Order: sequence, then C-alpha cells, then structure tokens
Amino acid sequence: MLLLEERIRRDGKVFPGNILKVDSFLNHQIDVRLLEQIGEEFYRLFSADRIDKILTIEASGIGIACIAAQRFGVPVVFAKKTQTKNIAADVYTARVESFTHGKVYDVIVSKEFLHAGERILIIDDFLAKGQALLGLIRLVRSAGAEPVGAGIVIEKGFQDGGDLVRQTGIHLESLAIVESMDDDGTIRFRH
Amino acid sequence: MLLLEERIRRDGKVFPGNILKVDSFLNHQIDVRLLEQIGEEFYRLFSADRIDKILTIEASGIGIACIAAQRFGVPVVFAKKTQTKNIAADVYTARVESFTHGKVYDVIVSKEFLHAGERILIIDDFLAKGQALLGLIRLVRSAGAEPVGAGIVIEKGFQDGGDLVRQTGIHLESLAIVESMDDDGTIRFRH
Repeated sequence: MLLLEERIRRDGKVFPGNILKVDSFLNHQIDVRLLEQIGEEFYRLFSADRIDKILTIEASGIGIACIAAQRFGVPVVFAKKTQTKNIAADVYTARVESFTHGKVYDVIVSKEFLHAGERILIIDDFLAKGQALLGLIRLVRSAGAEPVGAGIVIEKGFQDGGDLVRQTGIHLESLAIVESMDDDGTIRFRH
Repeated sequence: MLLLEERIRRDGKVFPGNILKVDSFLNHQIDVRLLEQIGEEFYRLFSADRIDKILTIEASGIGIACIAAQRFGVPVVFAKKTQTKNIAADVYTARVESFTHGKVYDVIVSKEFLHAGERILIIDDFLAKGQALLGLIRLVRSAGAEPVGAGIVIEKGFQDGGDLVRQTGIHLESLAIVESMDDDGTIRFRH
C-alpha cells in the first residue's frame, strides 16, 4: 500500500535493534483518515472471505480494527492481555511469549463473543516474530471458529513471523512489508 | 442518549457491588454502528468547542475515540498506563489511583503529541470515581494544552467522579448517567 509506505518513510523513526516507531500516526497518536484508507484496503483484500467478526488485541490494534469493521459492517472483539495466574472458565485463552518485552502472558476472549463456525478476520498493527498472532489463531480455533484471514498493517519481513503464519495456511495480508532498515533511517519495502 | 440507555438496559449486566458490564457492545465486543451514533452525539455536544485533538486512555477508550475523531476530523492520542518506576523525560505523566483494581499507576503521553494551546477533548467509556479522567485533565494542563471538554459514554451518577470533574469547570457530557442499579438488574437513568 503505497500511501502507507510513504507515510512510514516520512514519519516512521528507525532505532538501533531494528526498532521502527510509528507513534506519530499509528500506535500512540492515530491518524484516523489513514486508518480509513487502511480499512478500505483490508476490505478490498478480505471482503471475498465473508468475514463475520474482526478480532484484534489490545491496545494498538483496537482503533485499526474498529475503523476497518465499519467498512465490513461487523463487530469487533478485542482480546485482552493478562498475567493473572487464575484464568476464568468462561474465557478462551492462549499463552503468548513476547520477545520484545521478555515475558509470557495470556490472551483471553470471553466465550460469549466467539462462536463455533464464525469466520474471523484477525487485525493487528505489527507482525514481527508472530507470537501474538499465532496465539490469536490458536484461540479462535479453540472456540471452533475459523481464522480465515489476518490483516497486518506493518510486517517486519526480516523476522520469521510472516513465514510462520503463512505456514498455517491462513490468508495473510500485510499492507507494508519492511525488507530492511538501516541505522541511518533508510527503510526498504518488499514488493 | 436514548438509544444508548435502551442498549444498556437490554444488554448491560448488573452484578453485586454496583458493577455494570457492557462487554457485549462497548468494551470487549464493540458494536461499531453504536460507536458511530456515539461519535455523532459527541460531535453535536462538543463541535462548538473547536476541538484540535481527542485524548483517550487505553484500552477501551480507543475505539470510541477513533470513531468520534472521524466525525471531528482530528487525530486521536491515547494515553498509556504504566507501572514502570522509571518514567522517561520525554513524556507528560499523571499518577492515578484505581479504586476498582486497588493499585496506583501512571498515565503517560509523549511530549511529541500534546502541545501548548491545543484544545483537547478527552473521551472515555466510563466515569465512576473520576480518578483516571482527573489524571488526564492534569496531564493535558501540564502540557500547557487546554482540556476543553470530556465526553463520557456511561457515568455512574451515584459515585462522586462526575461532581469532581464538574468542579474543575470542564464541559463534561455523559451520554448515559446511571442513577441507580438494583441487584435484580433494574437500571435507572438520570435525565
């Protein structure tokens, strides 16, 4: 998505350790007009998949998912992250290891809001090592629902998450795939 | 807002201890069509206040703020909650005591995204004891920006947060004010 790549080039900030900060338009300050374009693109890519519901994960996926969901005309469910040891019986859960933060947490969704047979599109801002997304996929399957697609705004193509998710057979679409980043701030995209 | 009151009556769940759960449409599963109506109502109530930016707090305020922001044509900034002891120098911060969760946390916003003179509308899902909202108001003022309004979806009118916030002189609008809840599930609204 050219508009998004241009925005990442213009306003993204590269830090040592392959860190890309897009705080100014995606995950701290949010440009809702850009999210409308992103939602439109996700609709173009996934409308044929007959989506019943969009699933995302707190916090930075929520705005993206809500504005995309307007276009699809479906509800959003956002999974919650918890480190509580006692997981209630009325939730679906998946354990996720965060490499970024060096900790393990559970993602949970109330059983009220995921049902067998539902066709789920998972939306998130970033895909790097893929652990959160793979956790959401397991969680959807544990509900008997079908994770038909995953829509990602920015994939770090030099990490292995994208390959791991593609191996599950899910229809994965990343609107911008970063091939490499240099410490001088140069960003190359995969096309 | 009658549509919202009807939805709370129909789908809200009352639990002992004055707990009102609106998980099915507002803060776990999200009805984006309802959020569009809520955004429209916030626009009606606050458009005369010439808003430059909408500020909310993770996680459940984000969807509400983003869809309202589409109507206003302004960006959203969401404050992050942290319990980290080391607060960076490049953020505005306010300490908040959560009565619900019995802990103290900091809300932070990067100094890049709040500027002196900006007219800020704060949006959140719930107002009860008001500590989070009062923290956001302090945070906005510490940036030299002006917290001109606060838009709340559901206020618990039997708790003192609404009075505390109104005493600050800020234009506060709550779309539904719960006057009382009974253990049998009866909800009364203030008009």
